[in-house]
Amino acid sequence: MAYPANKALTVNADRLWARHMELARIGAIEETGSCRLAMSAEDAEARALFARWCREAGLEVRVDGAGNMFCFRPGLDPERLPVGSGSHLDTQPHGGRFDGISGVLAALEVIETLNDEGIQTNAPLAVINWTNEEGVRYAPALLGSGWYTGLIDEEGLAKAHTPDGILFRDEAKSRGWLGEGSEKFPLGAFLELHIEQGPILEQEQLQIGVVNTVQGLRWLDVEVTGADGHAGTTPLDQRQDALLASARMLVALNEIGRSYGPAARVSVGRLKPETDGPSTIVGRTSFVVDIRHPDAETLEKLTQECAAACASVGASSGCEVECSQRISVPPTVFDETCVAALEQAAIQQGYSYRKMASGALHDAANVARVVPTAMVFVPCKDGISHNVREYASPEDLAAGANVLLHAMLELSK
Amino acid sequence: MAYPANKALTVNADRLWARHMELARIGAIEETGSCRLAMSAEDAEARALFARWCREAGLEVRVDGAGNMFCFRPGLDPERLPVGSGSHLDTQPHGGRFDGISGVLAALEVIETLNDEGIQTNAPLAVINWTNEEGVRYAPALLGSGWYTGLIDEEGLAKAHTPDGILFRDEAKSRGWLGEGSEKFPLGAFLELHIEQGPILEQEQLQIGVVNTVQGLRWLDVEVTGADGHAGTTPLDQRQDALLASARMLVALNEIGRSYGPAARVSVGRLKPETDGPSTIVGRTSFVVDIRHPDAETLEKLTQECAAACASVGASSGCEVECSQRISVPPTVFDETCVAALEQAAIQQGYSYRKMASGALHDAANVARVVPTAMVFVPCKDGISHNVREYASPEDLAAGANVLLHAMLELSK
Repeated sequence: MAYPANKALTVNADRLWARHMELARIGAIEETGSCRLAMSAEDAEARALFARWCREAGLEVRVDGAGNMFCFRPGLDPERLPVGSGSHLDTQPHGGRFDGISGVLAALEVIETLNDEGIQTNAPLAVINWTNEEGVRYAPALLGSGWYTGLIDEEGLAKAHTPDGILFRDEAKSRGWLGEGSEKFPLGAFLELHIEQGPILEQEQLQIGVVNTVQGLRWLDVEVTGADGHAGTTPLDQRQDALLASARMLVALNEIGRSYGPAARVSVGRLKPETDGPSTIVGRTSFVVDIRHPDAETLEKLTQECAAACASVGASSGCEVECSQRISVPPTVFDETCVAALEQAAIQQGYSYRKMASGALHDAANVARVVPTAMVFVPCKDGISHNVREYASPEDLAAGANVLLHAMLELSK
Repeated sequence: MAYPANKALTVNADRLWARHMELARIGAIEETGSCRLAMSAEDAEARALFARWCREAGLEVRVDGAGNMFCFRPGLDPERLPVGSGSHLDTQPHGGRFDGISGVLAALEVIETLNDEGIQTNAPLAVINWTNEEGVRYAPALLGSGWYTGLIDEEGLAKAHTPDGILFRDEAKSRGWLGEGSEKFPLGAFLELHIEQGPILEQEQLQIGVVNTVQGLRWLDVEVTGADGHAGTTPLDQRQDALLASARMLVALNEIGRSYGPAARVSVGRLKPETDGPSTIVGRTSFVVDIRHPDAETLEKLTQECAAACASVGASSGCEVECSQRISVPPTVFDETCVAALEQAAIQQGYSYRKMASGALHDAANVARVVPTAMVFVPCKDGISHNVREYASPEDLAAGANVLLHAMLELSK
């Protein structure tokens, strides 16, 4: 039976929710949180469970040279490229149960629903788990989709390592989640479901966000070098205190971010003093500045201003500053056909929705460089994510999966 | 042969220097640095080498219930309490070869010199290595001398642990450096040689500092609680960013310290963000404020102002702040007789010297609560310490040891 058979076709909301809860047992923290850093033992365990579910659903599980998992369902027309959908299973250190996970499980739920109804599509389908979206242990973030789309070349992937010097490929291989070669599995289209990670849908009481753009991102690596010293004997005006200089930089960076209006984001979520003694003046620190804006030109200007502020504060604090750009992802405009398929599905299903930009970066922003792509958002409570209190309701997740289901049917018909 | 036999008696400068270099091989870092955190494997190895040298010099090595090493040389009068001298062998994470070490090795060199010359003293002598002066792994700092003088009771010692939860006593016992019971070895006097860790002696081209006071110290533990969040989606004006709030506090604390004039010290050498992801807003941090001043009343006022500033910045940054005082050591005035013995020895030996206050805290400041005590400083290059570049010359170390030698002879005669 080929599409369109039944526009009232819907996913199994209970199964989708139950799988969220089952997966969340792996790396569970603080009752409602998850800690599954990319290629950790917990990530490997989550991948194994997901692979088992895929195989039980009749999918062929394949792994590429960056550890990305592509789980294929054949189509009636072997000439067509697969319509892919998915997201990521890795989490932040204090992460939640939905960021990334919902996109992978919703795509799998689409397959399960088609299986239940005996529906075959003309194009093949693929459920995808991208490697290391969060970028906590391995830089850069979005490693798997970055490699897939050529943003990261073989050499870049070969060099990716933890702060402790563990190479990504060595660890991925030892965990059993590294495919061979540099072949990339081609896709005809890609759709990613994700929680919004912001407050807009909830505040506007909408069920669905059809995402047509993603704001651009830069990461600046900043290293501040002063001089170690004794906290008791060194007069305050003779210090080269790298931690104090860094504190001044963080304050300055925040002020710059605010001066660029409500669309700008400037954040420091990683700061490492090199020494750790309460009575030692810190001689060296490093931190990462995360800068985002939906307009490419403004993003560039904002980034330059942030780097200049670090240099200026360093000079006035007696410290040397090195500032280098590690990641640069331009703002993304999604594919019109994919956006239209999602919007049409939302309308068909009778959901309240809006078109919107994504405040967060996603694998879909990478994939959009080489494959027609779009995203669908579901609301999350209080806009909270990257946090153990992150929450999306079973109903909203099912609504998002239904939109995904009908958009995938449309694109693969 | 009893003192005063020979006022021209001097220590063996070469032997004193060679032992510094030999000890520095244990836990060596970056060519001229040392990393021997208290009760680490490296600290245990340094203790073993020091104990061997003591035994070879005929001393009886004993260890008390806090791991302090007391190495005794008998006196002619068994009724007299020993005259002790020493310091500590543990170091900062990026520490040098002299801070603490010089005080222990100079005291041992005094014994070696007396042995070489066949001199016996009326009072017994003791060479002492105090446990965990630096307080890097185990809080509080000056753990061994704090317990010795009753500042830390048995319960406090039993609770001392690393940030990872390893109990001090468990580790000291497993390393073989924990004595039994709560007996404290009594002393009649205590002298500690130390590098100045400040710029004064070098700038004034003096060889010896006779230390008659030590500035007081407070440590404030500050915990800042905001909320984790996503760096891309959370607007800057809706964040509860604990790291940004901490940065503002560090800037405010430095301004307060400067407003109290050149004798004040306010430092933050330990700051820990609880999360570590570049795209996660930090929901929680902790840091330690190290506050010092030679005047007790001013120190109290300064501490209150620092705590108030943290509370105020927290409130204006949308974060909760908990501020608790972990350490409070009042300013110390040393014993007149001990100070006079050191000053007289410096004059006898023809060294240029001055009386001075110590900017750093030392075990001697604790010991002075229960035993007549004083300190002798030797210059260190550029005033640098707690740093791998820390340096004291062989000549200055020998001069300091000679002052110690003659002061110990005077006090034990």
